[in-house]
Amino acid sequence: MARYSIGVDMGGTNLRAAAVKEDGRMIEKIAVSTPLAEGPDAAAADIVRSVETLRKKYSGDELAGIGIGVPGFIRMPAGVIAGWANMPMYNDYPVRDRIETALGTKVILENDANSAALGETWMGAGQGVQDLVLLTLGTGIGGGIISGGKVLHGAQGMAAELGHITISPNGYPCGCGNRGCLEKHASATAIVAMGRLMNLGASLTAEDVYNMAAGGNDRARAVFRAMGESLGIALASLINIFNFPLYLLSGGPIPAWEFFAPSMLAEVERRSFTYRSTKTRIEPAKLGNEAGLYGAAYLPFQDAG
Amino acid sequence: MARYSIGVDMGGTNLRAAAVKEDGRMIEKIAVSTPLAEGPDAAAADIVRSVETLRKKYSGDELAGIGIGVPGFIRMPAGVIAGWANMPMYNDYPVRDRIETALGTKVILENDANSAALGETWMGAGQGVQDLVLLTLGTGIGGGIISGGKVLHGAQGMAAELGHITISPNGYPCGCGNRGCLEKHASATAIVAMGRLMNLGASLTAEDVYNMAAGGNDRARAVFRAMGESLGIALASLINIFNFPLYLLSGGPIPAWEFFAPSMLAEVERRSFTYRSTKTRIEPAKLGNEAGLYGAAYLPFQDAG
Repeated sequence: MARYSIGVDMGGTNLRAAAVKEDGRMIEKIAVSTPLAEGPDAAAADIVRSVETLRKKYSGDELAGIGIGVPGFIRMPAGVIAGWANMPMYNDYPVRDRIETALGTKVILENDANSAALGETWMGAGQGVQDLVLLTLGTGIGGGIISGGKVLHGAQGMAAELGHITISPNGYPCGCGNRGCLEKHASATAIVAMGRLMNLGASLTAEDVYNMAAGGNDRARAVFRAMGESLGIALASLINIFNFPLYLLSGGPIPAWEFFAPSMLAEVERRSFTYRSTKTRIEPAKLGNEAGLYGAAYLPFQDAG
Repeated sequence: MARYSIGVDMGGTNLRAAAVKEDGRMIEKIAVSTPLAEGPDAAAADIVRSVETLRKKYSGDELAGIGIGVPGFIRMPAGVIAGWANMPMYNDYPVRDRIETALGTKVILENDANSAALGETWMGAGQGVQDLVLLTLGTGIGGGIISGGKVLHGAQGMAAELGHITISPNGYPCGCGNRGCLEKHASATAIVAMGRLMNLGASLTAEDVYNMAAGGNDRARAVFRAMGESLGIALASLINIFNFPLYLLSGGPIPAWEFFAPSMLAEVERRSFTYRSTKTRIEPAKLGNEAGLYGAAYLPFQDAG
């Protein structure tokens, strides 16, 4: 009897679920139509329905458990969402117990960026590596730290707030109260903000700035250069702190790699003795927005192993 | 038969050794007169002599092993000093094998700042805590990261180069090639450099600046305020990265706590959402320059456990 697990990703607008074999093959993926904004009861019901659909279909195999990637912070022992800034109605919701009770199967929660880092370690750009840092570039910048093959959680599950590393003490202000947070200088949102400051247009997307850079626009290229420098400052500090062999970047701005990577790597080279004297890789992640699904699916296997 | 271990600290001008019981009681300490500058063969002979002296004296007890705290980087599997900037004659010296062969006892090497962090976790300010970061403020700034009760080493044993976190991308230049390294803004050396920039005197020590601050000198106080701000920027990033419950500071400038801590804590408060929303402690370490001895002595017990 083959073993499989079910990974659930609550990181998007709707939730997604996937059945994944123990060898990492994703055998089926379900996207659910109920918007997460309808609230935790609707989402929990969707998760239960999705899992039951998959479980019925693979009833010949053994279900190892269910992993769920959740945005925001999780109170780990309790399995409760502690803080999800964009969807406060989920806060304090006992996701794990609700779903465990409904399904009679073990459920493990994990922060979505941590899940993505775990997914990349298992089946993506981090295969064969036990220690890596993932930076997810989106509206903000999230992160996941894998140390010795496991997620580094910190005391309250709040570790890896890598978007709030200070890269410039008097830089752009951040909603967290700080100034010069990495995410205000290198996220997709920051690309748009810098594009506006460069008079590239009023209603701009990060993709617009990318297209302009690809078309040879110097100001658009300067935006990505600045973004790369900021990433490089943060990465150099992370490398000096961790001396891990691998640092991964994922998210919408990754296609602009050719425009931000040269200045990023130049900063890292200059700012990290450790980088210069070791084989440290800085690379794009591989699994795109499926990383979190893989990572969530890996949780029950890791827990059992 | 009680168990004890022997810790050796090569971090000073001369080496020191101590016999420590399994419950953490230091039963005897030896300071050796041969300067480390006489080279690795002389130092190894000193270590062997010190251990033999202690072993003879406690022959009724069981020796669990020998731990040695070494400045610089260690190639962990080989037990070889890979890079000790101030004493290049030690580089590539097979310390561990030499001493194991001479004594017929298991020897474990560890970086001295990591040893100090481990010592504080075992018997100092970190008792009862499994996850902490130690910053050692001296000529430079070193560090040790304890995660899950163990030293975080990184791929080449180069983790925790916390003195080279960038706290200001265009700050003071650093010998490592970077600008704005924490240690150029907050070490004892930096206190002296800033004291000179403030015209406090030409041949100044960090203690002089402290004494002036204690005497009410505004410029000396401004030096410590600036140092505290720099520490706060780095600590906020570390807290956002690790979400550990405890961050310790040790070294010569600690007596000036009252002069640098207020600005340090104000920066951390402002720059770390995690700090504001959790019970994160930032405190002076407790074991002074014995932290490394305790940590080195703990290595054989940890390894056996």
